[in-house]
Amino acid sequence: MNFVKNTWYAAAWSEEIQHKLFTRVLLNEAVLFYRKLDGTVVALRDRCPHRIVPLSLGKLIHDDVECAYHGLKFDCGGRCVENPNGNGAIVSALAVRSYPVVEKCNIVWIWMGAPEFADANSLPDYPWNLDSTRYAETHGTLNLGANYLLVIDNLMDLRHTAFLHSTALEPREHARLPLQVSEENGRIWSRIFSPASKPPPFFAVAKQMTDPVDHWQEIRWDLPGAVIIFYGVTQPGAPREQGLGTYNLSLATPETDKTTHYLWGTARDFDLQDVELTRAVNAGSKWAFENEDRPVLEAQQRAAGDLDLMDCNPVLISNDTAAVKVRREIRRRIQAERAATTALQEERRATRAPA
Amino acid sequence: MNFVKNTWYAAAWSEEIQHKLFTRVLLNEAVLFYRKLDGTVVALRDRCPHRIVPLSLGKLIHDDVECAYHGLKFDCGGRCVENPNGNGAIVSALAVRSYPVVEKCNIVWIWMGAPEFADANSLPDYPWNLDSTRYAETHGTLNLGANYLLVIDNLMDLRHTAFLHSTALEPREHARLPLQVSEENGRIWSRIFSPASKPPPFFAVAKQMTDPVDHWQEIRWDLPGAVIIFYGVTQPGAPREQGLGTYNLSLATPETDKTTHYLWGTARDFDLQDVELTRAVNAGSKWAFENEDRPVLEAQQRAAGDLDLMDCNPVLISNDTAAVKVRREIRRRIQAERAATTALQEERRATRAPA
Amino acid sequence: MNFVKNTWYAAAWSEEIQHKLFTRVLLNEAVLFYRKLDGTVVALRDRCPHRIVPLSLGKLIHDDVECAYHGLKFDCGGRCVENPNGNGAIVSALAVRSYPVVEKCNIVWIWMGAPEFADANSLPDYPWNLDSTRYAETHGTLNLGANYLLVIDNLMDLRHTAFLHSTALEPREHARLPLQVSEENGRIWSRIFSPASKPPPFFAVAKQMTDPVDHWQEIRWDLPGAVIIFYGVTQPGAPREQGLGTYNLSLATPETDKTTHYLWGTARDFDLQDVELTRAVNAGSKWAFENEDRPVLEAQQRAAGDLDLMDCNPVLISNDTAAVKVRREIRRRIQAERAATTALQEERRATRAPA
Repeated sequence: MNFVKNTWYAAAWSEEIQHKLFTRVLLNEAVLFYRKLDGTVVALRDRCPHRIVPLSLGKLIHDDVECAYHGLKFDCGGRCVENPNGNGAIVSALAVRSYPVVEKCNIVWIWMGAPEFADANSLPDYPWNLDSTRYAETHGTLNLGANYLLVIDNLMDLRHTAFLHSTALEPREHARLPLQVSEENGRIWSRIFSPASKPPPFFAVAKQMTDPVDHWQEIRWDLPGAVIIFYGVTQPGAPREQGLGTYNLSLATPETDKTTHYLWGTARDFDLQDVELTRAVNAGSKWAFENEDRPVLEAQQRAAGDLDLMDCNPVLISNDTAAVKVRREIRRRIQAERAATTALQEERRATRAPA
Repeated sequence: MNFVKNTWYAAAWSEEIQHKLFTRVLLNEAVLFYRKLDGTVVALRDRCPHRIVPLSLGKLIHDDVECAYHGLKFDCGGRCVENPNGNGAIVSALAVRSYPVVEKCNIVWIWMGAPEFADANSLPDYPWNLDSTRYAETHGTLNLGANYLLVIDNLMDLRHTAFLHSTALEPREHARLPLQVSEENGRIWSRIFSPASKPPPFFAVAKQMTDPVDHWQEIRWDLPGAVIIFYGVTQPGAPREQGLGTYNLSLATPETDKTTHYLWGTARDFDLQDVELTRAVNAGSKWAFENEDRPVLEAQQRAAGDLDLMDCNPVLISNDTAAVKVRREIRRRIQAERAATTALQEERRATRAPA
Repeated sequence: MNFVKNTWYAAAWSEEIQHKLFTRVLLNEAVLFYRKLDGTVVALRDRCPHRIVPLSLGKLIHDDVECAYHGLKFDCGGRCVENPNGNGAIVSALAVRSYPVVEKCNIVWIWMGAPEFADANSLPDYPWNLDSTRYAETHGTLNLGANYLLVIDNLMDLRHTAFLHSTALEPREHARLPLQVSEENGRIWSRIFSPASKPPPFFAVAKQMTDPVDHWQEIRWDLPGAVIIFYGVTQPGAPREQGLGTYNLSLATPETDKTTHYLWGTARDFDLQDVELTRAVNAGSKWAFENEDRPVLEAQQRAAGDLDLMDCNPVLISNDTAAVKVRREIRRRIQAERAATTALQEERRATRAPA
């Protein structure tokens, strides 16, 4: 298995990173995070170059990190700025890898690939966390014992809600509705539209709805690990803007080949002041992840063992169209990165060769 | 390591399988069991062919199983009978492997090999569970952290009882007696006969015996994992039928390469109404398995690691004759199966080739 | 990874071995220890040659060990002296490997290599455990989840005390002092001398010292796993004999490739009757190992995974000079042993060849 490297992954919610050492394994690499005194976020490899001790065992001193073992001090760019041993010599190799980091929409994003390609402008906007005049939002982080593609498969298949989440989200009949899958500017969409139908359980309960509604359920895949579900209802025939909408962000970041950090957020554009509803949505989301998604995802991973799901001969059905497109696109990017790396290496070798 | 496939393995005691989903790993494969409404037992691979989710996470609906993830429904033969998604199309590949199952003598037997060879008539009779007018029986199931051949080695060596189980079963001198090992119609026997000797502890206690008895201890290996120990005493020179006999069934079914499901039963042909004795026999058997056999078997497995015992250069003694014969016969069967598979594949290839 | 074989390793403190079965894994091999009735220590491979059951599950009978499984009895040289099964035949292969063992200075030493090279005279003297008229000593044993070379790296770098143990042992400035590293008769020394300086915390507290002292901190590596730290203070310019000294023995014996038995002892040559101080030194040492060294060592091992630290591209600094010399010397010995083994095998082959 392998990961796209030249892309942004969600590392943490903003409030998870403070002015103290915080470590999280991402793409099989231990990364150390902290917020500088000016508030900007730093990401360094969590490994002292001297004797591979995790820097997270050390101390944050102003904006620098001091290794617990021998007092070597590194600045926020990973440069060694103090060697308190002997004559204090510092060779240039004594440096820690530093990763590009961007904080946007309340999320800390990290670039694990070649830093020269890191482009903050390529990051999509997820505005629901920021504008409390328009949205009531709540979110959380959990760790799942499954490869992140299994998490994305789950999300991209809108119909699974009619079985795994039938109590809270969709009635079983919902799964019969056609899916519209499309690719739009490198993003992959899957849409279900349910005209003049029984309100789905969430809205039925939250808003005491009983009359038929037009109901949309749409998902968009943006980045290797970022997907958004647009989920809402409106009066039959009325424009969406007059209805009620929720905006559900899922950020699945590989921790290891078999585990995933799952940052989830859910926002709504109605009843913004209803704190009780926000609390219930948070608790209900957690309950569904823990009791409905986690058992299935982790059982899939155990069944797959060291194999990728696609090497386990799954028999695909129409539900899988969007998930398969996402996997194909991710594979395409991984192959493109490998080809670029090979080309670069050959170029370098050619440059070094005598004329 | 490898297993004979075309044979019957004991999967469970009958009462372990009810009209609900029950999963057990056998020969490294997760198998789902349930009893249909008409009482017959079903065994399916515990893996939905769609996305490899264990079917045991789903629901039993009448005689069908519905997958938790997307509602695909499979009948007791493993055929997909309902796809509640989209237009409901069902491709033929969307099927679960079904295993031949036979229920006989209170035991559920499974055939993990080619179904066309599954012959219920080849199953031996173990009548002690069935006829309560002649036998008082008690049994149980436990899981051992050792390869099933280590369990069978243990059983086939009748003399180990004089050391590991010297309190309950045999005095130390017993190990001096000669062993008679023979092969009879594909079965392997090992016999010890102890004429006019001190009654073994079990009978001495259960029947307050003090006078000398003729004592037999005989073991028969029937199938890869089925062995029976005949164990009894009679008055010196008297026929066995006038004595007291016990019939001890051991069914060692590989769970994985390093773990074994051990189904054990013990029956006696005397004091049939003595419920207290039956209870004591059950408790005593469990105690011996847990405190005398398990520590040795699991220590052997830890010492062997990924190797087969025979690749650890064991120095054999006369005790091992029967166990070695069993291992040789099992190896012969595995090789014969491999040869047959290869021949079949070549035949198929030849058939497909142009004339 | 690999170990020097033809050398002495510390297996246990003398009092750990009594007249009962005691098992400890050393260099990936399970070894059984016991003390004979005459007090001498025996070391046998903890594996019955018959069916690889640990002999430690069996019984010690006088000076012999009886296997739990089939009663085979082995003497303290590993010879099978009784087979209580059948006709009692004993083939010569039915023997357990026996290891040379020496007890010296309250420590049980084992030779895991070719017994013919085991020379007790090559063992250094560590007299601090023996002479209570001159030293007050205390010691202990712990198990660390790190390769033993990581433990030795830690010890050979005297400066790490100024960071990891700055509360109890050295102030941070100490790390600035020059190190004198030398090889003397196959031993490797590293020395720091701090003239007329603030007393280090241990002496400051134990002896209420405030005036400047000459302070020495010296480490000597003797054997693959044995190092001694000499640590003391004296009045500026006065000879050491007039000062206060401590003698700190560290015996790091590989348990597996990733774990180490760590036998530690610390002795002092002053306040010999102060039992309270001895108790505090013991508790303080344990506290430092558990809370300061263990987290760093085990984090290094986790970071290295299956690699040797030197294959993780560590960037060395001046602190590492002694540790690198030790690693180089150990590697040299391992290579010499391999070459000798190869030469021996070739010689044997040549001898067997026809003239």
